[in-house]
Amino acid sequence: MEEILPWRVKSLHRPEKLWRMNGSLRGRKREGSEDRTPKKRFSEVQKERREQAQRTVLIHCPNKISEKKFLKYLSQHGSINNHFFYESFGLYAVVEFCQKESVASLQNGTRTPSMGTEAAIPFRSRCFNLKLKNPSNQTSEQPCVSRSNQSPPSSKKLFELLCDAESIDDQLNTLLKEFQLTEENTKLRYFTCSLIEDIAAAYFPDCAVRPFGSSVNGFGKLGCDLDMFLDLDDIGKVKEHKTLGNFLVEFQVKNVPSERIATQKILSVIGECLDHFGPGCVGVQKILNARCPLVRFSHQASGFQCDLTTNNRIALKSSELLYIYGALDSRVRALVFSIRCWARAHSLTSSIPGAWITNFSLTMMVIFFLQRRSPPILPTLDYLKSLADAEDKCIIEGHNCTFVCDLNRIKPSGNTETLELLLKEFFEYFGNFAFNKNSINIRQGKEQNKPETSPLHIQNPFETSLNISKNVSQSQLQKFVDLARESAWILHQEGNDHPSPSNSQLWGLATLLLPSVAKNMSQAKRKRKKPASERVKNLLESIKSSSTENPTNTSGTRTVSTQA
Amino acid sequence: MEEILPWRVKSLHRPEKLWRMNGSLRGRKREGSEDRTPKKRFSEVQKERREQAQRTVLIHCPNKISEKKFLKYLSQHGSINNHFFYESFGLYAVVEFCQKESVASLQNGTRTPSMGTEAAIPFRSRCFNLKLKNPSNQTSEQPCVSRSNQSPPSSKKLFELLCDAESIDDQLNTLLKEFQLTEENTKLRYFTCSLIEDIAAAYFPDCAVRPFGSSVNGFGKLGCDLDMFLDLDDIGKVKEHKTLGNFLVEFQVKNVPSERIATQKILSVIGECLDHFGPGCVGVQKILNARCPLVRFSHQASGFQCDLTTNNRIALKSSELLYIYGALDSRVRALVFSIRCWARAHSLTSSIPGAWITNFSLTMMVIFFLQRRSPPILPTLDYLKSLADAEDKCIIEGHNCTFVCDLNRIKPSGNTETLELLLKEFFEYFGNFAFNKNSINIRQGKEQNKPETSPLHIQNPFETSLNISKNVSQSQLQKFVDLARESAWILHQEGNDHPSPSNSQLWGLATLLLPSVAKNMSQAKRKRKKPASERVKNLLESIKSSSTENPTNTSGTRTVSTQA
Repeated sequence: MEEILPWRVKSLHRPEKLWRMNGSLRGRKREGSEDRTPKKRFSEVQKERREQAQRTVLIHCPNKISEKKFLKYLSQHGSINNHFFYESFGLYAVVEFCQKESVASLQNGTRTPSMGTEAAIPFRSRCFNLKLKNPSNQTSEQPCVSRSNQSPPSSKKLFELLCDAESIDDQLNTLLKEFQLTEENTKLRYFTCSLIEDIAAAYFPDCAVRPFGSSVNGFGKLGCDLDMFLDLDDIGKVKEHKTLGNFLVEFQVKNVPSERIATQKILSVIGECLDHFGPGCVGVQKILNARCPLVRFSHQASGFQCDLTTNNRIALKSSELLYIYGALDSRVRALVFSIRCWARAHSLTSSIPGAWITNFSLTMMVIFFLQRRSPPILPTLDYLKSLADAEDKCIIEGHNCTFVCDLNRIKPSGNTETLELLLKEFFEYFGNFAFNKNSINIRQGKEQNKPETSPLHIQNPFETSLNISKNVSQSQLQKFVDLARESAWILHQEGNDHPSPSNSQLWGLATLLLPSVAKNMSQAKRKRKKPASERVKNLLESIKSSSTENPTNTSGTRTVSTQA
Repeated sequence: MEEILPWRVKSLHRPEKLWRMNGSLRGRKREGSEDRTPKKRFSEVQKERREQAQRTVLIHCPNKISEKKFLKYLSQHGSINNHFFYESFGLYAVVEFCQKESVASLQNGTRTPSMGTEAAIPFRSRCFNLKLKNPSNQTSEQPCVSRSNQSPPSSKKLFELLCDAESIDDQLNTLLKEFQLTEENTKLRYFTCSLIEDIAAAYFPDCAVRPFGSSVNGFGKLGCDLDMFLDLDDIGKVKEHKTLGNFLVEFQVKNVPSERIATQKILSVIGECLDHFGPGCVGVQKILNARCPLVRFSHQASGFQCDLTTNNRIALKSSELLYIYGALDSRVRALVFSIRCWARAHSLTSSIPGAWITNFSLTMMVIFFLQRRSPPILPTLDYLKSLADAEDKCIIEGHNCTFVCDLNRIKPSGNTETLELLLKEFFEYFGNFAFNKNSINIRQGKEQNKPETSPLHIQNPFETSLNISKNVSQSQLQKFVDLARESAWILHQEGNDHPSPSNSQLWGLATLLLPSVAKNMSQAKRKRKKPASERVKNLLESIKSSSTENPTNTSGTRTVSTQA
């Protein structure tokens, strides 16, 4: 029991509430900074965010706008809880009212535009255009409203930030801070789901459109796709059943031969609505014959590429599990973000489906690695299950997805290793992992014999007979192993050779993000002598050229000089 | 002025309120039965009916049901204003609550059925299935609920009723009574529109789905199609515009190149919804490239074949005009129904588009004929326009559709001619009409020179440059003229030879409804000697065989022996 119950030590790490990480975290000593604020359950966060989103409107504004006048104008419809501006195709404002009724008030005071030669589809949503009656009235000397950033940093910017960091720990935290979803971006994601919910709720009043995956699991990066599903589970649940007499009333409905066909039909109609009515919904594709039927579209105003599916409860439960793992210890997300960024820089992952390792697989590998530390940084899934009470019980499609939902019941780890050490050890661990015979399994937190012959075997945590990395080819796995070894070697070579803060040279994590195809070790050493800005420029060019190559071809051309 | 203002005489005829004609009308002396009840405007009727429909639900019931228990059960959700049962695919109840809130209460207490091997589209409408929790509890000795009839009589039944009538006037009124829309059928039509309105209103909250044409113009026959249009005109009208400051808010909408494309897109999505979600909506066809794009579908529960279009204000105004003409004098509808029935029996009209005369054209011919009587029975459209006040003014797409909307301001006709006389004279009038040079024109109520060479020219009352019977071929027109002459001759031959009520022989109107292809005059005379039942059977068989022939082929084979 000692081995799998190592969370007796009090929390030493403060996972940021709702994934915001502020600058003060940088370089902060983790030891001693205890935080006893109760952590919110995933379901609480989801519920709160959804309710916020339902009170929220999106307003396309003129570029020159007085924030004060804008807020005064909207306050006619009720108090405003929260607002921010951002830049997309023009300037947008996201305004969250305190009361849902304010949205209706705004809608009632809003007209459908009369077009000139064109015609409008007079659809009423929560997306508005704000116009100036007399544009010249707003002087050009208006102070610009501050715009919240919705994009990840450019590569150039990232390298600069990493070089300016104080330590490798600081580098990992900086990368996390720059790439993770901001509070505003998260709000925008829930709001976008809520717009789609309005469309679906027109016909299925008790439905919900829930984001899942990277938008909510704590591991989403700015710019990542928005996955959402239409949850019809609460439909047909009778609120108050009048049972007088011998009668029973049911809705007359269309019957179809299977749940799948029902799903396809519902998605098909929602797809039509989005395509024909949804303001700013473009590129609507109905991919209804896929294993999991979906509607894909771009939501222009928010800039999100969206995938709408139905019945994805198991995916939502996976998101919750990752949320918990990410929230338990602040090192988890920092390490995962850096490993993913490293993998992307070396074309180990790709935005197109194929033989590449996925971000989900990489995350599972990090979690597994952190379960293997001594003392462990993360508990096993079986341990989380053992903490579950009756209310946590969850069986989906025959799979036991039960684990404790209350994060406060999980004791924090006593492990105090630095991110720098963990990064090095991660590369060493997987550079030496016996992928040929062992399976990665976060349920038990132990290497298991592979039940099948796929090059990489990572057990699906809920559908345990499945391998989440079945798609990975031997050559892609080998590439991963080679790069892990190379990276471990680079970190080893660098040793304690951190430059002083004023000396902005490539070092630490930044070095690992250089594509190996464009360098060998001696070159990397030599480049250090050049001014950082010039080297960054060259490196960016090489990243650009390497990312256009086919990664399966480049994997064979690399010289691997290290063995751990 | 005397000639076109003949409505100084007080009303002698009582148009039935909302088109219900009860048995007491039969054989009633029209003279002296004055009715000073103010007649409702078309718009008032439409509004009232629409509101009723919104408070109404449709319930599929078990065949054995206690009406008392059923009403008691539903009364839990609020007081019931009105209800009736009818037979379609099973037993249905239409229940109109006093309050709209009762519908929501019923919906909240209703579950979506759980299917066995099938899946349900969990769409919430106002169509329900009522089930017995314990079917054996409702004993089979339950008195059967009375079912309202939604179909016209069979030919056999019609002939029997006509033969039993007391006079030709009575025959025409009987035919009207049997074929006209009942109160219940009218309610069902508005209810069906209201269901479609629910679907459209999900996205276009202030829209209305309005029935038009035969369902509302007073000339609809049981079983006729249900034409409806989506009225978006009230959308975007701002209820309360907040104009603080220099701002103006509009909905973000999709823009399309034309109103037509907007219409097509909206109809397309509604068509998808009906097809995929609408309980009992089958055979959905999207006919979007027609001049007037439409969605056609069958609504199984009501048994209606429905056509949904958009932007059909001019058609609605035509319906209103016919409503007024039909309501002004009780003889109008009786004559129109009989002429239409006569035309259908002789394949002068058809349910398929082609060179046939339409019911609308026939109605215009009857109206024109009644305008030509001395004194006139119906006023000209120009006269109705002259009575219009400012509020009646109506210009649609550049066409002046203005006429008086308040029926009570139109003085009734002093003409007291019997229906028998009018029927005879109708056939004589059109048997001798100079179709080759004259146009029929209800606006002026005078024969006009034909502006074009179509065989039959009937001026469109609002779009006056159009001919509503442009489709009619010379041979179809000739067939109409021949049959009109033949019918005039038959009525002339019969003279006052009405059989006694006990002697159920074919006579009067019934004789005119026999297909001429199966008879000549001497045969008809001979057949009179056979018992009525046997003759009716033979005749029905001949109707059956003639109606399957191509009417354009049969028109040449007829022997026409009469000249007026």
